[in-house]
Amino acid sequence: MSERHLDRIRRAAKQVEADEVDALLVTPSADLLYLAAYDPPPLERLTCLVVRPGADPIMLVPELERPRALASPIGETIDIATWRDGEDPYAALTPLLPEAGRIAVTDSMWAVHLLGARRARADAEFVPGSNVLAKLRSIKDADELELLSRAARGADEAFRQLTDSRLEGLREEEVALLLGSLLTEAGHESVSFTIVGSGPNGASPHHEPGGRTIRAGDPVVLDFGGRIGGYCSDLSRTVCVGDPPRGFQEVYEVVREAQEAAFQAVQPGIAARDVDEVARAVIEGAGYGERFIHRTGHGIGLEEHEPPWIASDNDQSLEAGMTFSIEPGIYLDGRFGVRIEDIVSVTETGAQRLNRASRDLETVA
Amino acid sequence: MSERHLDRIRRAAKQVEADEVDALLVTPSADLLYLAAYDPPPLERLTCLVVRPGADPIMLVPELERPRALASPIGETIDIATWRDGEDPYAALTPLLPEAGRIAVTDSMWAVHLLGARRARADAEFVPGSNVLAKLRSIKDADELELLSRAARGADEAFRQLTDSRLEGLREEEVALLLGSLLTEAGHESVSFTIVGSGPNGASPHHEPGGRTIRAGDPVVLDFGGRIGGYCSDLSRTVCVGDPPRGFQEVYEVVREAQEAAFQAVQPGIAARDVDEVARAVIEGAGYGERFIHRTGHGIGLEEHEPPWIASDNDQSLEAGMTFSIEPGIYLDGRFGVRIEDIVSVTETGAQRLNRASRDLETVA
Repeated sequence: MSERHLDRIRRAAKQVEADEVDALLVTPSADLLYLAAYDPPPLERLTCLVVRPGADPIMLVPELERPRALASPIGETIDIATWRDGEDPYAALTPLLPEAGRIAVTDSMWAVHLLGARRARADAEFVPGSNVLAKLRSIKDADELELLSRAARGADEAFRQLTDSRLEGLREEEVALLLGSLLTEAGHESVSFTIVGSGPNGASPHHEPGGRTIRAGDPVVLDFGGRIGGYCSDLSRTVCVGDPPRGFQEVYEVVREAQEAAFQAVQPGIAARDVDEVARAVIEGAGYGERFIHRTGHGIGLEEHEPPWIASDNDQSLEAGMTFSIEPGIYLDGRFGVRIEDIVSVTETGAQRLNRASRDLETVA
Repeated sequence: MSERHLDRIRRAAKQVEADEVDALLVTPSADLLYLAAYDPPPLERLTCLVVRPGADPIMLVPELERPRALASPIGETIDIATWRDGEDPYAALTPLLPEAGRIAVTDSMWAVHLLGARRARADAEFVPGSNVLAKLRSIKDADELELLSRAARGADEAFRQLTDSRLEGLREEEVALLLGSLLTEAGHESVSFTIVGSGPNGASPHHEPGGRTIRAGDPVVLDFGGRIGGYCSDLSRTVCVGDPPRGFQEVYEVVREAQEAAFQAVQPGIAARDVDEVARAVIEGAGYGERFIHRTGHGIGLEEHEPPWIASDNDQSLEAGMTFSIEPGIYLDGRFGVRIEDIVSVTETGAQRLNRASRDLETVA
């Protein structure tokens, strides 16, 4: 196991202690990948890394996955305990847990496993693991920043290629497939999502690309991402096929201004909700406040969405090394939507955009 | 929304009542796909269908996904409630839940959502949703059986094509990619997993295909699957590259006999654990009991792994329409592994195999 991962587990144990938590349970997820470079799929069989202050970490795995765990980076350095099909995995987990106190669990841990752990330790209080781990995971090191930059540049390149393509006459689902191919060509090892919302469909922020054929005069919201070196990209741009419809350009400029203002506001020490408020104020000022129906952004790293949340209910202070999206939008039912999104990183003095794609309105064929 | 899905929701509500459960919370998962044909990714934002006896179902979605939900099949028939970024989604969930009693939740619901729901209804007892829904989902209707059969035949075809290929000299990871392509060519819309365990790596049931080059004399465990029409395939065969090593053929025959005996045992009314016991008895009788380190099988449908579990701790009776794997194995550390797996369905009088691939030992080049 690499020194980097051992160091992360040591820091996690310290954070657990600092947060007055008695154990951290890490199930297959980005948490486990981050701490232990172990990446089995989350399934009905319990796999769980237990991190406790003052104790060595231990990994509980199904007996049939013991060889796989031993062959992985954790095999060299972390003690592995097993349970066997037909046995109660939570009985095997019990002696690894404190009898009471606070136990933090991976946010995406399956409910069936959390319910099992609660049966095993009924007197413990269970809390979301991100309370503890976000303090580590949200501050990216130089290597992580480099991978996020590469992912961002790959997404930029896919967008550039797309704007050279003819969209008129294609169905949204065809453009989504094309975007996926372009992400792969631009170095992505996997494609996570490709939102293509044309015309009125752009007013649905998470529109499922479908059979609608793109026509001249359609604005098209494109929002797509995947992974390079395990780290995520996530880029949104809104383009127009030929001349934009009446009123579109004004809305576009409002969103662009909101995105720029939020970016300019980012610096170490500012509260996440204040960045959200800067974007929201621009959009509210233009009279579209009720049509900006989501937060301004989300952290990004090994997960597409992770802390810090750039949202009105998050008073946490931003710190150098944090990376997140800034993606205000305006959604006009039955007409169109506009969203402009870049991934940014907090620097010692302000922020930098990891995406370089132009935010000028692009007209495509 | 189709009559089929409405009927499923009605039956789920009845089952909830019969099981003395007061509400069923269904988050994005195969449960939600099964009940409502709605398939957003499971994420940090709460999306949740609430099924209560004597009340109409209601779907809670993030405000920004309201247009997506309305455009989906649920939009026509299920009431949609929303919460907005910056608001507490669990506060929005609270009025949809009983004040106390038993609340069943999707097994794979994220822990962070379960913890939020528990905060909202601290007096309720939360239980795994599969307690309720497996009674519906595990009995497949004719259309589901047809899709599972098509998926099984696609996996059979991929296996047939693979045995026509030359494996000697390829790395495991190359064979895994090839298997993925063959599944796609055989009609799979997605590939879920491709295990290739050559030589001693075959002794690791969930081996991660890696850089090992396959050599003459290697047994190779192949275990792979994907989806056709949303339904899963899952096929395992063990082949030999040229002449098998000493002792292999005897072990192969034991596993084959165990698999056949378990298949012959399947009929309505037999306990799942008795089917497991039949396979286990054959392997124990041959002296390899300690090297059969997993259950005999798992249900399959919209999920690769779902109830019923064919395992020593499951006393549930099998019923016509259930579909599951029968996949005994023997794993000899440092030497090789053997696993033979078919998907079978319980009929009115016994069982039938959905896979047709030969279980004779195949020698490949």
